[in-house]
Amino acid sequence: METVRNDGRSAEEMRPLVFHPGVAPQALASVLVSFGNTQVICAVSVEDNVPGWMKAQEVKGGWLTAEYSMLPYSTATRKKRSSNGKVDGRAVEIQRLIGRALRAVVDLEALGERTVWVDCDVLQADGGTRTASISGAAVALQMAFRRMVREGVLRSNPMRQLVSAVSVGKVGGMALLDLCYTEDSAAEVDMNVVLTERGEYVELQGSGEEATFTPEQLAQMLELAHSGALQILAAQRAALSE
Amino acid sequence: METVRNDGRSAEEMRPLVFHPGVAPQALASVLVSFGNTQVICAVSVEDNVPGWMKAQEVKGGWLTAEYSMLPYSTATRKKRSSNGKVDGRAVEIQRLIGRALRAVVDLEALGERTVWVDCDVLQADGGTRTASISGAAVALQMAFRRMVREGVLRSNPMRQLVSAVSVGKVGGMALLDLCYTEDSAAEVDMNVVLTERGEYVELQGSGEEATFTPEQLAQMLELAHSGALQILAAQRAALSE
Amino acid sequence: METVRNDGRSAEEMRPLVFHPGVAPQALASVLVSFGNTQVICAVSVEDNVPGWMKAQEVKGGWLTAEYSMLPYSTATRKKRSSNGKVDGRAVEIQRLIGRALRAVVDLEALGERTVWVDCDVLQADGGTRTASISGAAVALQMAFRRMVREGVLRSNPMRQLVSAVSVGKVGGMALLDLCYTEDSAAEVDMNVVLTERGEYVELQGSGEEATFTPEQLAQMLELAHSGALQILAAQRAALSE
Amino acid sequence: METVRNDGRSAEEMRPLVFHPGVAPQALASVLVSFGNTQVICAVSVEDNVPGWMKAQEVKGGWLTAEYSMLPYSTATRKKRSSNGKVDGRAVEIQRLIGRALRAVVDLEALGERTVWVDCDVLQADGGTRTASISGAAVALQMAFRRMVREGVLRSNPMRQLVSAVSVGKVGGMALLDLCYTEDSAAEVDMNVVLTERGEYVELQGSGEEATFTPEQLAQMLELAHSGALQILAAQRAALSE
Amino acid sequence: METVRNDGRSAEEMRPLVFHPGVAPQALASVLVSFGNTQVICAVSVEDNVPGWMKAQEVKGGWLTAEYSMLPYSTATRKKRSSNGKVDGRAVEIQRLIGRALRAVVDLEALGERTVWVDCDVLQADGGTRTASISGAAVALQMAFRRMVREGVLRSNPMRQLVSAVSVGKVGGMALLDLCYTEDSAAEVDMNVVLTERGEYVELQGSGEEATFTPEQLAQMLELAHSGALQILAAQRAALSE
Amino acid sequence: METVRNDGRSAEEMRPLVFHPGVAPQALASVLVSFGNTQVICAVSVEDNVPGWMKAQEVKGGWLTAEYSMLPYSTATRKKRSSNGKVDGRAVEIQRLIGRALRAVVDLEALGERTVWVDCDVLQADGGTRTASISGAAVALQMAFRRMVREGVLRSNPMRQLVSAVSVGKVGGMALLDLCYTEDSAAEVDMNVVLTERGEYVELQGSGEEATFTPEQLAQMLELAHSGALQILAAQRAALSE
Repeated sequence: METVRNDGRSAEEMRPLVFHPGVAPQALASVLVSFGNTQVICAVSVEDNVPGWMKAQEVKGGWLTAEYSMLPYSTATRKKRSSNGKVDGRAVEIQRLIGRALRAVVDLEALGERTVWVDCDVLQADGGTRTASISGAAVALQMAFRRMVREGVLRSNPMRQLVSAVSVGKVGGMALLDLCYTEDSAAEVDMNVVLTERGEYVELQGSGEEATFTPEQLAQMLELAHSGALQILAAQRAALSE
Repeated sequence: METVRNDGRSAEEMRPLVFHPGVAPQALASVLVSFGNTQVICAVSVEDNVPGWMKAQEVKGGWLTAEYSMLPYSTATRKKRSSNGKVDGRAVEIQRLIGRALRAVVDLEALGERTVWVDCDVLQADGGTRTASISGAAVALQMAFRRMVREGVLRSNPMRQLVSAVSVGKVGGMALLDLCYTEDSAAEVDMNVVLTERGEYVELQGSGEEATFTPEQLAQMLELAHSGALQILAAQRAALSE
Repeated sequence: METVRNDGRSAEEMRPLVFHPGVAPQALASVLVSFGNTQVICAVSVEDNVPGWMKAQEVKGGWLTAEYSMLPYSTATRKKRSSNGKVDGRAVEIQRLIGRALRAVVDLEALGERTVWVDCDVLQADGGTRTASISGAAVALQMAFRRMVREGVLRSNPMRQLVSAVSVGKVGGMALLDLCYTEDSAAEVDMNVVLTERGEYVELQGSGEEATFTPEQLAQMLELAHSGALQILAAQRAALSE
Repeated sequence: METVRNDGRSAEEMRPLVFHPGVAPQALASVLVSFGNTQVICAVSVEDNVPGWMKAQEVKGGWLTAEYSMLPYSTATRKKRSSNGKVDGRAVEIQRLIGRALRAVVDLEALGERTVWVDCDVLQADGGTRTASISGAAVALQMAFRRMVREGVLRSNPMRQLVSAVSVGKVGGMALLDLCYTEDSAAEVDMNVVLTERGEYVELQGSGEEATFTPEQLAQMLELAHSGALQILAAQRAALSE
Repeated sequence: METVRNDGRSAEEMRPLVFHPGVAPQALASVLVSFGNTQVICAVSVEDNVPGWMKAQEVKGGWLTAEYSMLPYSTATRKKRSSNGKVDGRAVEIQRLIGRALRAVVDLEALGERTVWVDCDVLQADGGTRTASISGAAVALQMAFRRMVREGVLRSNPMRQLVSAVSVGKVGGMALLDLCYTEDSAAEVDMNVVLTERGEYVELQGSGEEATFTPEQLAQMLELAHSGALQILAAQRAALSE
Repeated sequence: METVRNDGRSAEEMRPLVFHPGVAPQALASVLVSFGNTQVICAVSVEDNVPGWMKAQEVKGGWLTAEYSMLPYSTATRKKRSSNGKVDGRAVEIQRLIGRALRAVVDLEALGERTVWVDCDVLQADGGTRTASISGAAVALQMAFRRMVREGVLRSNPMRQLVSAVSVGKVGGMALLDLCYTEDSAAEVDMNVVLTERGEYVELQGSGEEATFTPEQLAQMLELAHSGALQILAAQRAALSE
């Protein structure tokens, strides 16, 4: 028997994936990525210096860092802008994840003394904003590096391979791929997996806040994740070959 | 003799005006407004309560407030996100202007005990972001109120008329309409004018940081502003009648 | 028929103007300015360096910046001190206005690598604190520059001319000069005008929060503003010639 | 051939585990936990109210939240205290993990309208501070709940089972259990696993910042994690039965 | 042999004392106090509620709290305004001292459910700003309470007696009364003493940052303090009887 | 008749004093000090640079600064961690006192261009946390300097003598030494005295928030303080000679 999801998808099916380049023309490169109704602006900027701690520790090469934010009108109930030092713990956690995921496939030393900023601003939130952010940012980053090579700023592209990220979860006892908001709210287990083009893991974050999961369920969810990553990768490659 | 501007416009000509509705589907109403290369996301949300000071002072009716921000990738050099209580004085000034401009044409008492949030996030900055914000926000606000009436939340539309905003300036001694960034940087006088559909003033802010201006130059700039407002008004009406 | 205002003034009459120098003896120069019951301490200090952005952009010369604050006991209801990153938007707007107004008449390049700080602290608030601040600060600034020339720090006075600022408004349909607090609270239109000694505009800020204004009303208010500026100028010159 | 680690351990061996209760006598319950040289004070406090969002959303029952901090003298180079809104992203991430891990085994509804605070302050840091924190906090939490039952505050113990947490990593191509600081600094892959008494997963966080990992390596690390969890569990039970 | 101080005073002589009432007309009561060149605005305001902790702990009566700040132009080198959460430790210490000193002579329960705010803003700093603040604030507070009694807000004056505060120090081995800035900078021991009209101690703060002091020197300094307090008390009474 | 205190002590008796070294092994030196139930972790760290103001003013030598905090679980009711710029005035006051007390007995110039950090974190609070902090920090500091001499970092020990600190108070009209929390809460007068080995004063802070004290009472309390200091000194010396 087939799983019937609200939007008619099967358990192992991604939502429609769109990578729309050029949404922020002042950025070095930008992509508006959609995973169904989830939409994120991913933009890449470059600065010609490195963070203070790199200078202090005399680390060679460059740095890549990410910032993630939800625009106030991205959710059904307006989300206050963070300010006055009030920390948005979830956003901090997500932007650290995005940064680590991308640094894993970039040769930072080859960047030279530069900082790459990856901004991910959620325009519409319907579950999976962090996985859409990483997947979209990987495309924007690849575009940015290609441009830097084309413009003679870099001798070769420091990005070793693409990464894609996908969410999987256990909802009502069933493993589902790419959860939308209503599924995510009802999930017993929520897992985000970042994978390289070669199918290796970059990040794996599984969490059962109101439940736990067995090794068998883990295996099942990881299988779904690999299948989802292949779907995303195809869409990323298509966007990059246009 | 004709003025020749970089982009081929005459002195009294607006840049191409586009009001693209629906850019942020979770908002009550939203518009992506373009004044040439300047692009701003304008989105309207509503909350069912009012600020503390209104309750304390027992003011009847509702409130309308605006927030303005430049996305980090909206400028050629990446703009840091404001946080940690570091005040962005320019943004504070602009969001206060947007709020006042819109409140002037809205019957706040008719709103009921509600707060209307108007968010303006600049996606691409090329001069005139505050005037594009006000002009786009007026359209989004009108759409939001129409929807609230349609859905039975409000009995009648509390917006008395449209407002539009336009920048004029004195560049190299000449009065120009709707300055782009390079013109704005070189301007001796910079003026922003908010006008109603009936051609009355809502706000008038003229500033000569490195120069002053005579009553004659003021008159000339105000004339340009009225002409620009008519052009914007036509585009606003067209967007609202679609 | 004559307008009868609460304090017996005619529509085009300023409140009593006093410029009392030397109120803060540690400052380079200081003035306690009174526009009727509105009293502001204006003090000028100088530092031998310039802001970081000027060094970064290699801008020559100096800078002038203003800070405005209302002392907690300047209003009938005690005003909390701003702290903890809570932004006082109105104060930010006013101090930016004061800074721009003064920079318009100062030759910043002639200042040398220095920052001039103009502090305006309101001791008693009864309407028109921003116009009193600008008018008083102009006198204190002129005194400070004269002292710097006298003491051999500057070769010549970098202040090209005086500025004065005045508020005008539409109250109950009538145009009034120099509004006190009760008039200001009832005003339909509120306008602040900064003028040079030669009668040219430096800043013009008109705002109709609950109403709009016609070109005719604008003309009438500007006429009042010019007349008020002449009265202030006379008092400023008298204070400077003592 | 045996792995030889700096401290003489085999690859699948935990450092000496100590759970010393009562270190903070004012707390409801407290434990000083040691994983080798890593020492963390874990203390539990209870407040008779719940966070604002629970009241707003009318969620029944209680809440559990954690705070994690490194004491300034816990590291070889003194660590500045966080203040002034400067966010310590790593600490935010860790305290969110601790909170989720414990909430997964606690029946929040059975808590009643209470907030349980779990504070983890690192006294000495030598790798694995987050896994020591979770493992120690689980013991302190169990002690606190037993005391609340004993004192008649709770009818039954809301903690369904113990949790333990363990780090595993890939260092120089080899999978190692419970990494100390020098191993952690050299690790290509770093994984933290939170497991229940029944051997089910609560949290799984694997990260390869400069490298990626294959499904085979994942399987190998998970196996080590299960073995480590059993060692911790034995020590936790011993501490609780004293 | 007589001590010769820079300003010609003897060791046991206060600087000229002036208590000028009414400097801030919007306050309930205000005094501009001068201890020689040190000038402080002391102003009293009253709010009809009490701090949250009093309500929570169901403490009866009212509260009195003080805020101390140095105006930016009160010192030879401009002092930055405190903002953005940057703590001015010295100011915190001083305002806590002012609050304690005044609460010691006020019957808080007789105040009713009110908070008395005492603001002390230094206009010119030349040593002894905290003692001038306390001495001036005591006069302003007495005036405020008398007015509240006169206006029927309070049935009787809750201030039991006056307080005065005085600094004494050991400079070059000699005990001196009421140190000015240059003396204070050179002092080996710095002591601030708050005394009641009856000659009892309210606060005693002695500090030898680069030196220590013997019981004999303490006795000598306390004697000077009592003599200074009598001089201040006479001036306070004179101001209050005007 | 003998005073009977809750814990059976006489009026002039200290609580049991323990100085337990090595509690924080990563610090240069550390001591867990107990005054009865009051327990404070005192740890010393050294950095090879000095604060910005010392460089700016070209002050020779080094600096010593202290930070004081109460761990959240040190009090019966959990104490919130300070963050987001919310100032804990009491903690600021205490850490400034600790810093001054220690600087009085250290030859800062002999330190070289170094900053000594003294961290005092209260593990259990039962009155007298500031006096325990100073007394414990003096021991840790002495240990740190001996180690620096031993390791050849300093040529000679820059600490001229030990300091100890003790609280005395007037409770129910009687002078008591070393107040515990319940005594402190009931005290009419609270005094903290910092004394050198030679019996000279370093700091003296007496405060009567709801009462005042006479010269006779001051003398009596100072006598108690000297006796308490001798008891502490003996315990400090014992700890240092182990």
